[in-house]
Amino acid sequence: MPKIVDHDQRRSEIVEAFLSVVARKGLPAATSRAIAAELGVGTGALWHYFDGFDAVTAAAYKRVTERTNERIAGASTGLRGLAAVDAMMHEILPLAKETLDEAQVVVGFWGRLAANETLSAAEADVSDMWGGRLRDHLHEAVDDGDLASGTPVDGIVDLLLSISVGQQVHAVMATPLLDPARQLALIEQCLSPWRRTPRQPGETVTR
Amino acid sequence: MPKIVDHDQRRSEIVEAFLSVVARKGLPAATSRAIAAELGVGTGALWHYFDGFDAVTAAAYKRVTERTNERIAGASTGLRGLAAVDAMMHEILPLAKETLDEAQVVVGFWGRLAANETLSAAEADVSDMWGGRLRDHLHEAVDDGDLASGTPVDGIVDLLLSISVGQQVHAVMATPLLDPARQLALIEQCLSPWRRTPRQPGETVTR
Repeated sequence: MPKIVDHDQRRSEIVEAFLSVVARKGLPAATSRAIAAELGVGTGALWHYFDGFDAVTAAAYKRVTERTNERIAGASTGLRGLAAVDAMMHEILPLAKETLDEAQVVVGFWGRLAANETLSAAEADVSDMWGGRLRDHLHEAVDDGDLASGTPVDGIVDLLLSISVGQQVHAVMATPLLDPARQLALIEQCLSPWRRTPRQPGETVTR
Repeated sequence: MPKIVDHDQRRSEIVEAFLSVVARKGLPAATSRAIAAELGVGTGALWHYFDGFDAVTAAAYKRVTERTNERIAGASTGLRGLAAVDAMMHEILPLAKETLDEAQVVVGFWGRLAANETLSAAEADVSDMWGGRLRDHLHEAVDDGDLASGTPVDGIVDLLLSISVGQQVHAVMATPLLDPARQLALIEQCLSPWRRTPRQPGETVTR
């Protein structure tokens, strides 16, 4: 049993080293050599724990998803309805240094996924999980009277999921849509037609 | 002068060979070896025309954008307003074999972009160009009375651009959002709150 724990621990350290290098120097710098140097081991030592660099990328993608989910759990504790939707989207969209770094990791992974069908097995159905939570919170908002009773919840969920992915790419491409104010406006654009009481200018959701 | 024409022609043939292999066998199969075999030359011959595989990927991305723009021009001839928006989005979203193949190429490119900052110089500002056209057509729809006079055109353009990118990734990840009916519903979700007359069930835009 200790052996298995050590193995998992070592894999986790490799992934964290990968993410540290990305955060400090960007994805292009996060080579297997740089990861090994970060850990003070030879490059070959990595391959006792991963079947190549694609597998490291897949594990880093999984870790980024876990991190995001941990942040969502923290930010949405005690919240429901639109405040919870807002808290979730703030953690998912690339609005700050941490989420911008993560965008590089996930878009890099998707690019490898496109080039390597075997990686798609490693793909957690993130959209499905986030979609379910967003759906629940939007129904809460309807129940609470914040959104109109005829609000097309499923359609809004699909929009938010499509945006969540699209904005990761806009971040990496550094298009004008990367501007945080414009990103947050995307969410409001999805919700505003269905709000019962219009949002006041400058109003922010209590977090 | 003929020499330059030959050089451009050869680059174009290499890119078309890349796209043919992707269409027949998928992006993972589109290696430099497979491209060379498609053209009946040795692999080394490719590197007289491109500075490595990243450059081939960038040129293929550019070609996919051109193809899309050519299809948009064909499909939207004589159209204005919402019919033109619909025609554009039908060519951009990965709804059929051709656009699904293209999604693999563009997501693969974005992944390399994330891993290679120098590629971002090759990135045409597609979002800006498409955004401008979508904005014009939405204003036409307001002028024609199809959309309400208070329609937030800029916000809808941003949503459509974010979706356009997000759905390429959903295609490669093969999530449930890949369903063509769900993809088209995304567009309607953006537009329906602002339509002057609700769309009839089953109504399709005349093309």
